[in-house]
Amino acid sequence: MKDFTFYNPTRVEFGKDKENKIGEYMALYGVKKALFVYGSERIKTTGLFDKVSLSLGENGIEFVTLGGIKSNPVISTAREGVRLAKENGVDAVLAVGGGSVLDTAKVIAAGAVYDGDVWDLCSYKKYPDKALKIFDILTLSATGSEMNSSAVITNEETTEKFGFSSPAAFPTVSVINPELQATVSKDYLAYSAVDILSHCMDLYFTASYIPEFTANHIENIIKTVIRTTDILLNNPDDYEARSEFAWSAAQALNRSTFAGVEGNRYDTHLIEHSLSALYDVPHGAGLAVVYPAWTAWHMPTNRSRYERFAQQVFGLQTAEEEIDALTNWFISIGAPVKLDQIDVGADKIEEIAAHIYRTIEMARMQSMYSKETLIELLNRM
Amino acid sequence: MKDFTFYNPTRVEFGKDKENKIGEYMALYGVKKALFVYGSERIKTTGLFDKVSLSLGENGIEFVTLGGIKSNPVISTAREGVRLAKENGVDAVLAVGGGSVLDTAKVIAAGAVYDGDVWDLCSYKKYPDKALKIFDILTLSATGSEMNSSAVITNEETTEKFGFSSPAAFPTVSVINPELQATVSKDYLAYSAVDILSHCMDLYFTASYIPEFTANHIENIIKTVIRTTDILLNNPDDYEARSEFAWSAAQALNRSTFAGVEGNRYDTHLIEHSLSALYDVPHGAGLAVVYPAWTAWHMPTNRSRYERFAQQVFGLQTAEEEIDALTNWFISIGAPVKLDQIDVGADKIEEIAAHIYRTIEMARMQSMYSKETLIELLNRM
Repeated sequence: MKDFTFYNPTRVEFGKDKENKIGEYMALYGVKKALFVYGSERIKTTGLFDKVSLSLGENGIEFVTLGGIKSNPVISTAREGVRLAKENGVDAVLAVGGGSVLDTAKVIAAGAVYDGDVWDLCSYKKYPDKALKIFDILTLSATGSEMNSSAVITNEETTEKFGFSSPAAFPTVSVINPELQATVSKDYLAYSAVDILSHCMDLYFTASYIPEFTANHIENIIKTVIRTTDILLNNPDDYEARSEFAWSAAQALNRSTFAGVEGNRYDTHLIEHSLSALYDVPHGAGLAVVYPAWTAWHMPTNRSRYERFAQQVFGLQTAEEEIDALTNWFISIGAPVKLDQIDVGADKIEEIAAHIYRTIEMARMQSMYSKETLIELLNRM
Repeated sequence: MKDFTFYNPTRVEFGKDKENKIGEYMALYGVKKALFVYGSERIKTTGLFDKVSLSLGENGIEFVTLGGIKSNPVISTAREGVRLAKENGVDAVLAVGGGSVLDTAKVIAAGAVYDGDVWDLCSYKKYPDKALKIFDILTLSATGSEMNSSAVITNEETTEKFGFSSPAAFPTVSVINPELQATVSKDYLAYSAVDILSHCMDLYFTASYIPEFTANHIENIIKTVIRTTDILLNNPDDYEARSEFAWSAAQALNRSTFAGVEGNRYDTHLIEHSLSALYDVPHGAGLAVVYPAWTAWHMPTNRSRYERFAQQVFGLQTAEEEIDALTNWFISIGAPVKLDQIDVGADKIEEIAAHIYRTIEMARMQSMYSKETLIELLNRM
């Protein structure tokens, strides 16, 4: 195994009804006043808003709210959150929602203890070395943000989609009650599945080295996501499948898949972030479009890894069969696999390529992508 | 998945030469003065003692030492450590050694901030809710103590082998450099392998429920340990095998194997602790003796789980084949599988059974074992 650091202090409270204990968990860590961040107002009709309010109240925790976080969250909302957090002197941020809400909460938590504009922390200008305590109740498992130290957000003025990774941004407690995810739509279940798979596959296919133990661990996550997605599309109330799906999502990006790995990149995420930043495409849908073209283009550089995947995940033999099987699985779950399916025309390709290339430059990422390669790749999508 | 809490804040620094950074890691957490605990004086001839001293000195960390921790560590040494820690006003304990040294360090760290006798904390009299910060450089991977919150120690006056589990006892930083383990003897490699396997197998065979994801995770650990032990017995310098072995040992008892599991017990550990408390048998050797008899006795209560194990781990079909294969593997790596091989005669069986039963009562463990069952079981060993 190559040298690595493993560190993940997030306490995961996994299971039924645990959202009712959120106030108790926060009080354990000394929270007195919180900013309660959420997405749509639907949590007021499902009863979740009331449950959380009650639990906070019972534990003597005051709160102010910030609703309306949308998927592909934007920096203007985070700025509003920072203002609220500072004005009200909160000592924690509570996210109730999916990855977008949680990422916004992380950005707010870092911005609340920073004197300048919070976008500085997301655009590689200033490293966010501290933050308010972050708590969450997850209602959609996909991004893995509930068990990692990263956040991604879009600056809608510049259409830049950047973010940060800092130990200060690990949630203190993440509540994962799979029952809360039973009402996720089939579309979003499919997008979530693709997102989780690509957290695994980007690493798996690009890494120059993966130890056997870690490769098996990654394959276990991938197989679990495929198996449980197929179950959940037919039976959204299957608690067992929902819970294995949720736990796999958390594992996929909690750094357990990095143990002893060398040379991995997040290529399809890099490309997709431009799609969602420019055209507000759901992240998982964008990834599903990027994957088939990217993987066919990338495969010759690491054929044996693709063959291993074919065998371990699909019980097939060749790398070509693997690509077909994966694309067909995406289609079978209702994910788009072509740009025109997400209403992005061929006339946008130059713009997208330029956008991706700007990210590569901003983030000072070593990359194999020239602008020409990106255009070639986008033309295949 | 059944409800669970996952929490593991230990930062693992894994890889070559990382022991040279121990002072840096400790300084990051504000340590000024440490108690440096170790086992045999051999670390003074291998150069490890000097490396650690140098790194502590370079980072302005003073230290006092306590050597001579033996395997199956004893409370009298821990008491001596508590005295040293209090007298010198240390703010951390650094363990350099295997699980015995680390467990002793944990007991000292808890005892140093407790007013009474440290044995109170190990014998269920007083819960250790706080402790000094704990750091370690691991020289033998087996117990998993480097990534968990438990410690086990023997009171040599009463021959009780008890311990505790408390979030306060998670190491802050664990350094795992597989190179430091290349000199472990073949005997201890075999004992360590059995210890790691039984951390997995006790849970795997006794649990009333294991989710598919978690079962696969456990099987990955087990298969890795078997594969890498076979390599290391022939080639102790195989760094790749040594590192996968070490990482598997940490995974086996860091609570990742508990995710969503219900009804598991630690039966063979319960039985073995009496063997090592009474006769100072190496823990892994004791476990290897307990396993074949215990598993044959236990198997009919959970036959399908044994069949799964047979298929997944050994590529076999029946539960009976699994038991034979495991026993034969223990024999092949040089582990004892009968009481007379560890110099415990049949005349001791009553004494052992009484000792185990006392532990069951002390720890208020629900157990399926009557004293008669224990005697029957021991007679098969």
